[in-house]
Amino acid sequence: MNFKLKNDTFLRALLRQPTEYTPLWMMRQAGRYLPEYCATRKRAGSFLNLCKNPDMATEVTLQPLERFPLDAAILFSDILTVPDAMGLGLYFAEGEGPKFERPLHSEASIKALRAPDIGTDLRYVTDAVSQIRKALNGSVPLIGFSGSPWTLSCYMVEGGSSDDYARVKTLMYTEPKLMHHILEVTAQAVTQYLNAQIEAGAQAVMIFDSWGGALSHYAFLEFSLAYMQRIVQGLKREQDGVKVPVIVFTKGGGLWIESIADTGCDAVGLDWTMDIGIARQKVGHKVALQGNLDPSVLFATPEAIRAETERILASYGYGSGHVFNLGHGISQFTNPENAAALVQAVHELSRKYH
Amino acid sequence: MNFKLKNDTFLRALLRQPTEYTPLWMMRQAGRYLPEYCATRKRAGSFLNLCKNPDMATEVTLQPLERFPLDAAILFSDILTVPDAMGLGLYFAEGEGPKFERPLHSEASIKALRAPDIGTDLRYVTDAVSQIRKALNGSVPLIGFSGSPWTLSCYMVEGGSSDDYARVKTLMYTEPKLMHHILEVTAQAVTQYLNAQIEAGAQAVMIFDSWGGALSHYAFLEFSLAYMQRIVQGLKREQDGVKVPVIVFTKGGGLWIESIADTGCDAVGLDWTMDIGIARQKVGHKVALQGNLDPSVLFATPEAIRAETERILASYGYGSGHVFNLGHGISQFTNPENAAALVQAVHELSRKYH
Repeated sequence: MNFKLKNDTFLRALLRQPTEYTPLWMMRQAGRYLPEYCATRKRAGSFLNLCKNPDMATEVTLQPLERFPLDAAILFSDILTVPDAMGLGLYFAEGEGPKFERPLHSEASIKALRAPDIGTDLRYVTDAVSQIRKALNGSVPLIGFSGSPWTLSCYMVEGGSSDDYARVKTLMYTEPKLMHHILEVTAQAVTQYLNAQIEAGAQAVMIFDSWGGALSHYAFLEFSLAYMQRIVQGLKREQDGVKVPVIVFTKGGGLWIESIADTGCDAVGLDWTMDIGIARQKVGHKVALQGNLDPSVLFATPEAIRAETERILASYGYGSGHVFNLGHGISQFTNPENAAALVQAVHELSRKYH
Repeated sequence: MNFKLKNDTFLRALLRQPTEYTPLWMMRQAGRYLPEYCATRKRAGSFLNLCKNPDMATEVTLQPLERFPLDAAILFSDILTVPDAMGLGLYFAEGEGPKFERPLHSEASIKALRAPDIGTDLRYVTDAVSQIRKALNGSVPLIGFSGSPWTLSCYMVEGGSSDDYARVKTLMYTEPKLMHHILEVTAQAVTQYLNAQIEAGAQAVMIFDSWGGALSHYAFLEFSLAYMQRIVQGLKREQDGVKVPVIVFTKGGGLWIESIADTGCDAVGLDWTMDIGIARQKVGHKVALQGNLDPSVLFATPEAIRAETERILASYGYGSGHVFNLGHGISQFTNPENAAALVQAVHELSRKYH
């Protein structure tokens, strides 16, 4: 595994080492906006089959890289594989998003929660990581990922997606000990899961805290950030003599960027609401930043995409430490040509800042 | 109209004058969590009938004040009365939220947009304001309100609620001039509308920028904040020799609190994501703050409600300038007894800070 990467710009940017341009990848870059992805998914029969089949997961992971000169690949998977492996029974009801057959709706089910055996229950994920890493053949680095304990717990307690998180917040405010028990077990599971991905070949890992932004300041610190910090501290940060950077991304977490940077992570993900120049002033001496284009910009023209790209690059300013990305997953309604325009704009326009 | 208020604590807090305790009201305090509201709404036949009938709007505005010793009343109405008066044809499809019959889906419809004649098209609102003010009989102040131009435009362009604002953001990024035209006309309408409410008896006004938080930093400044600033500057700030404070509330706007405070408003509304003590450090010398309890706390026990209330009061600290509120509208699933527990907790626990 100790061969040299042809393009390690992404890893260098995460470690704030000099680069020739600003590297980029796009959250959910292997997704429904690509017709080739839709074709593979159709062949798989279901989204879960696609996640659970390492051959097909490898295929879709590589698809965006064949179209665009992206600077990183990200494992194709779903954040809910972890609670599924914990026995909650993940399924996707057509047009309704993810659901659990056995959500945590009772004290007994919460107390019975156990971290999964990663080596068996999530073997299909680590197999996919190894296979993708091999298929990439040193072209660009592979990112592994997991949901944050808070975000996973939202789904586990709500039983699916939620607008207001009423059930999980009621539990959090009325039975904080039970809530902490769920988070504790989930944090152990996520730590083991990410370490297994690193051992299987992931060259950077990212924690997606999609719903941390739904919390109050104090609840975020206590119920989301504390557990992400514990995970960061429990991760293997080097594999085969090479550093493995960790990215923490709380959507809607701009207000807490300093606390997130203090977890010990290498980079902080930013959605599009916070100006990246202000973010850099606050934490740029500690961490790299990843973001922060509003994915809706990709609905506009190539000219508008270029203008917004330049705005973000200029706001970040000179020097390394920025990985360009969207502030959230790419929309299924995006025209792939506009994604191509973004990749070109970032690569071209960023050179003058390096 | 120049009689003295029995309880002007709310107005004094907004003007950062000394008070004996921290006043409070609750966003959407006249709403579906109250059985008496549901009864009146049933009698009205529809939500729109309720809004458009000043007798019934008065009745529901007063209902929460009969239950709880709140420190302010807020006009019962809907932010979408303004686009409705602009000819877009507001209706409520059962279980689907608000919709427009004639959304702004073409350049021609955008160019044809005109500010309504408030005196005729929105007469039912100013009539309700006069009637509520009279019915309150000087007990507590009456708050008038409007949606922000950006928030109203989201609905007008999308044609209803939206998860991702794809249509309005596409317009904003591809046709910024058309977007500015909508915002310009809407800002004129909102200014006239709020001034008409002030003339009819509203003793404070609030601008609800419910969707400003969906924008990028620069888009927020250009497409939402600039228009709210124009409105604040165009408002009558005094009526019958008494100051009329203005509150600006951008949900998810914590990152921009300093810019919001610079609009010239008297108070900034806060959702629950930003710590109010940090907010006060940033802007407390300029404006009062209103907020910031997560409405989900009201799903918990009276003890938890009390603990979270104390946390917010302690974080704000000593002195005037805080109006306690939820960070968003009260949920229809709230037990009214928990709302009562909140009101009691705020009134009791806040005295030591004054």
